[in-house]
Amino acid sequence: MTCLNSAQYLSQPHHDTGPAYLLGARRPGAELSARLWVPAPWEPERVILRQVVDGEPALSAAHLVARASGGAWWEATVRLVNPTNHYRFLLLSPGTEHPYVWFHAAGPADHDVPDATDFRVLADDDAPDWVLDAVCYQIFPDRFSAHTPPRERIAPAWAKAHSWLDEPPLRGTPSGEAWYGGDLDGIADHLDYLQRLGVNTIYLTPIFPAGSVHRYDATSFDHVDALLGGDEALARLSQALHERGMRLLLDLTTNHTGVTHDWFQQAITDARSPEADFYSFERYPDRYATWMGVESMPKLDHRSDMMRDRLLRGPASITAHWLLPPYDADGWRTDVANMTGRSGMVDLAHQAARDMRTTMRQIEADTGRQLWLVAEHGHDASGDLGGPGWQGTMNYHGFTRPLWSWLANPDPADDLDWLGIPTGIPRLEAGPISRGVREYTAHMPATSITHSMNLLGSHDTPRIRTVVGSRAAQLVAATALFTAPGVPTVFCGDELGATGRTGEHSRTTMPWTSAPGAAPTDELGPTGAWGKVDRVVLDRYRQLGRLRHELPALRRGGMRWVHAEGDLLAWLRTHPDGDVLVVLARAAGAPIDLDLAALPAGAVADVEVMDGVAVTVIGGAEGRLTIDATGPGSAVITLRPALPRSESVRVR
Amino acid sequence: MTCLNSAQYLSQPHHDTGPAYLLGARRPGAELSARLWVPAPWEPERVILRQVVDGEPALSAAHLVARASGGAWWEATVRLVNPTNHYRFLLLSPGTEHPYVWFHAAGPADHDVPDATDFRVLADDDAPDWVLDAVCYQIFPDRFSAHTPPRERIAPAWAKAHSWLDEPPLRGTPSGEAWYGGDLDGIADHLDYLQRLGVNTIYLTPIFPAGSVHRYDATSFDHVDALLGGDEALARLSQALHERGMRLLLDLTTNHTGVTHDWFQQAITDARSPEADFYSFERYPDRYATWMGVESMPKLDHRSDMMRDRLLRGPASITAHWLLPPYDADGWRTDVANMTGRSGMVDLAHQAARDMRTTMRQIEADTGRQLWLVAEHGHDASGDLGGPGWQGTMNYHGFTRPLWSWLANPDPADDLDWLGIPTGIPRLEAGPISRGVREYTAHMPATSITHSMNLLGSHDTPRIRTVVGSRAAQLVAATALFTAPGVPTVFCGDELGATGRTGEHSRTTMPWTSAPGAAPTDELGPTGAWGKVDRVVLDRYRQLGRLRHELPALRRGGMRWVHAEGDLLAWLRTHPDGDVLVVLARAAGAPIDLDLAALPAGAVADVEVMDGVAVTVIGGAEGRLTIDATGPGSAVITLRPALPRSESVRVR
Repeated sequence: MTCLNSAQYLSQPHHDTGPAYLLGARRPGAELSARLWVPAPWEPERVILRQVVDGEPALSAAHLVARASGGAWWEATVRLVNPTNHYRFLLLSPGTEHPYVWFHAAGPADHDVPDATDFRVLADDDAPDWVLDAVCYQIFPDRFSAHTPPRERIAPAWAKAHSWLDEPPLRGTPSGEAWYGGDLDGIADHLDYLQRLGVNTIYLTPIFPAGSVHRYDATSFDHVDALLGGDEALARLSQALHERGMRLLLDLTTNHTGVTHDWFQQAITDARSPEADFYSFERYPDRYATWMGVESMPKLDHRSDMMRDRLLRGPASITAHWLLPPYDADGWRTDVANMTGRSGMVDLAHQAARDMRTTMRQIEADTGRQLWLVAEHGHDASGDLGGPGWQGTMNYHGFTRPLWSWLANPDPADDLDWLGIPTGIPRLEAGPISRGVREYTAHMPATSITHSMNLLGSHDTPRIRTVVGSRAAQLVAATALFTAPGVPTVFCGDELGATGRTGEHSRTTMPWTSAPGAAPTDELGPTGAWGKVDRVVLDRYRQLGRLRHELPALRRGGMRWVHAEGDLLAWLRTHPDGDVLVVLARAAGAPIDLDLAALPAGAVADVEVMDGVAVTVIGGAEGRLTIDATGPGSAVITLRPALPRSESVRVR
Repeated sequence: MTCLNSAQYLSQPHHDTGPAYLLGARRPGAELSARLWVPAPWEPERVILRQVVDGEPALSAAHLVARASGGAWWEATVRLVNPTNHYRFLLLSPGTEHPYVWFHAAGPADHDVPDATDFRVLADDDAPDWVLDAVCYQIFPDRFSAHTPPRERIAPAWAKAHSWLDEPPLRGTPSGEAWYGGDLDGIADHLDYLQRLGVNTIYLTPIFPAGSVHRYDATSFDHVDALLGGDEALARLSQALHERGMRLLLDLTTNHTGVTHDWFQQAITDARSPEADFYSFERYPDRYATWMGVESMPKLDHRSDMMRDRLLRGPASITAHWLLPPYDADGWRTDVANMTGRSGMVDLAHQAARDMRTTMRQIEADTGRQLWLVAEHGHDASGDLGGPGWQGTMNYHGFTRPLWSWLANPDPADDLDWLGIPTGIPRLEAGPISRGVREYTAHMPATSITHSMNLLGSHDTPRIRTVVGSRAAQLVAATALFTAPGVPTVFCGDELGATGRTGEHSRTTMPWTSAPGAAPTDELGPTGAWGKVDRVVLDRYRQLGRLRHELPALRRGGMRWVHAEGDLLAWLRTHPDGDVLVVLARAAGAPIDLDLAALPAGAVADVEVMDGVAVTVIGGAEGRLTIDATGPGSAVITLRPALPRSESVRVR
């Protein structure tokens, strides 16, 4: 029997929850048309849609609505009845090789399958629409740009001043102390540069005063660190961003504070203070729950109602304060959200997410704005998403990890951190990679992926350039970043080809030629630690940023795997205005041939080839594509719509 | 590349959360030894255990603890820190065909996998220990046995009297009205019979007064239906059971009541009564939420605190009442638990489960008893299990459905109900069946399976004899029932070879020869509707009941798939006292050979062959088994322990 759950995707039926395959506005009570593409060899006798309604399976017939040369379109109705609505298809083909096949988000299966991997749609999805169009840029504020000369600022005792182009320390205490002097006004100085890169959203790692340069050990959540320019600098930056139609995401540590935090100081000074309940003391006042055993980061106890009120709940909370004027941040990235509220037999992680989200919904209702709530979550987040809390994650598990393990430098000088796993980064084949991503994403609503940040790296990881070991491979990674479902999130400096061996070492500075205090320019000069700015990479990021904004399928399309074998990966972003085919090659390989009729697609509208991939188009809508990788490279191929319009005549 | 996720199970590593592979007492704070069996060809260089602790992955080394001829044993530590603790293994074998393999509950994978299918252990598992030893018997009270002659009872208006041996109606109103006259004292009359069958737990479908013979449309939850003998008859039955060390499970409808229920009558009489909030009126008083559109079954609204107090919460609730003296039931089966509390945008299903469980825990704390809470749940229950609520389900999805679709009559006269899917029962191969079960069970803690009821059928389905179409196939199904993880649950009459085409039609009576009112005997006579009692089947059920009680591995062992191809299925129940190999054949096929060293097992201790399966044992512990199916049949093969004792010397 043919292995159904293989990576031979084009011979499989297809459905996704994007706008080409699930038609209609998503709101409670809506009836949506779910389309299923069934490749020609299948010819099922009947197709049934199974949806679980109020906890019970409900079955209804799908109808054949159109035929094409490569297959047929079936359509069925999905009702948005419950908060999460899940469904799958049953293809009945008596007397054939596959008489009884379920098709669900994890692919086709020749046996009964769990509901856990059904297609999933939220009836009342409050994730911001603007996030679908976002291109995000992550800034570690100390390292982007200094507007005020550092010598004019009074540095705290922990800060060890570094010259702007010094190589960042590799790890440990020196990295937390290494103060380079970036500030918020320095960011405002370079918004032209960011917009040229296609960036419309900035994510800042913490900006509150703290005991280190990373500021994940906050001293207070009430003010912006004076070292970064204070509250007024944030208000200025926010205003400058919003005037350009850009957005601002801040970083809140909900899991812990620093030991120097006002709350913790009060807690250890007065055992009867309410703040003493904000933390968990095993032995008062010197033994307490921490983040990962780090004593300078005492863990917050989400059983404390007063802590929840101060940090998360209501218009007077920290959560609300920075989302309101004059700061007007557009959302929060929650630090170690996966650990927040979790400690031994207590699990209040979802409560914490709900607390924040409820506060944010109230502000949305009052102001008409849309706010984004993203969890830092380094592994399977499916159990923590889809509910009324975090709308997405930093998608390490569904994007960074698979991409790294496909593109990893095959011949590394030594082992980099494999995102927490004590071994070098494995180099795996495209087939397993694609199966892993499909299996993972099948466990959650697609909206949880589209509202997540895709990352090639961050302030917590080696840099992509170092992971993949070459410009050519970084360029392939960049194409993936800008064409996959999810918010492309560029870690500041990646676009210049910067390198870094650890999270701390990756916190390189931007090599602006203008000095602090002087009139800012966007000119880039010598980089100090890591060689020259790679202008080829910078141009490619700009090109990809443009493509993302030009092609609705890249921003808002559904996702279909097309090909995944060894050194070649291809996927299709599906959209009523035309699909976009993305091809990635990590090395030269035998050419592959794709029937446009099998995608199914109309004729090719445009081909944007980048580096070692040749694309030959033969014929029109009934023609085919030959993809020939002569080395690492990628291509973005725009296709004309081939889907039947929703008014199309029914075949039966 | 070899397809890792195939059904070639013996070449795959193995771990399960049973007592042979996860050693140590399970309680919060415990450190357990997790054993991994790695077949000889693998030889990983390193094995790493990844456990998620407080939401964050934690990695630790596994150690090679022993070698055997067929492979090697590795061991790592699993800490019970959180309510649910999940973990998997990473096998690193650089330079081999499989350099990077995750092994988790869904099997081995050559790519990163979701946490959703990790091995899962609860730290504080309150599921009763006695359930592991239970053999359950489901009784539809009207149809088991009449102690009091029906003519001596005053039947309600809805009841249409039937003669004891009449064929039950196929469906619809006639089936709800068909009163045969069984009662609770009639059950007490035949406890010898049940014990001879190995039964130690009785599950009764509802016994409250209602508007039908199935009683899922209760008129009250305060008393036992007088038609069944009233409250005193239940107390008598319970006492008789407990005197024999047997247990009693009752059936509570938490999703709805009947329209004749006191609460509903009060609700529609007085719009301002608290009972009016027990239901959801779309238009008072005549349009209201129901069970599946059935107007005689108004749906309860779990937003009503008073309803929750009356039905579920606290010592004065219905839930508590029937678990306390003089009734002392040992638990509840919750009717349509999957739908309870779920209606549109409201989802209070877990609240309802927690409400019941909290009440039951209080009784447990007060009395030292252990109570069982089982959900009726016809599909993927993984999202509803593992928390502080339902401890198991009626396992249609993980047992009934896969077994039916392997053993289904290949040549049925016409289509039976495929458990709600509008097509005939498909007949699938063993490979897909086993993959489906493994994938499903991987989504929940193993304890959720061991504390679920396995069923070959129920009062809601066609009978197994009718589904499979022959005695030979029913006997294969019976072996599966008594040897799989989960509580073997016999639907009354299946053990006689009774037939039935629908749930209603399957509610056949037991053909006792003694008349109501006369001294009861366990003698069986003519059956009326469905031919003769099949004594071969009855003897086999008794034999299997004995085997289940004799072999700890069948009751308490872990589960390993061994072989699954076409017409042959084999699994191993793993236990420190010796594994048990179960072989099922649905038809004759080519013989297969199993190396005992690959299981790994010690020598064969005993072989119980049933029907068309020949087992040849060659050699001792280093020998092999040949399994030759000449037709439908099964074998239960007892093996001597081959696992290293926990004190065994470490290899390194």
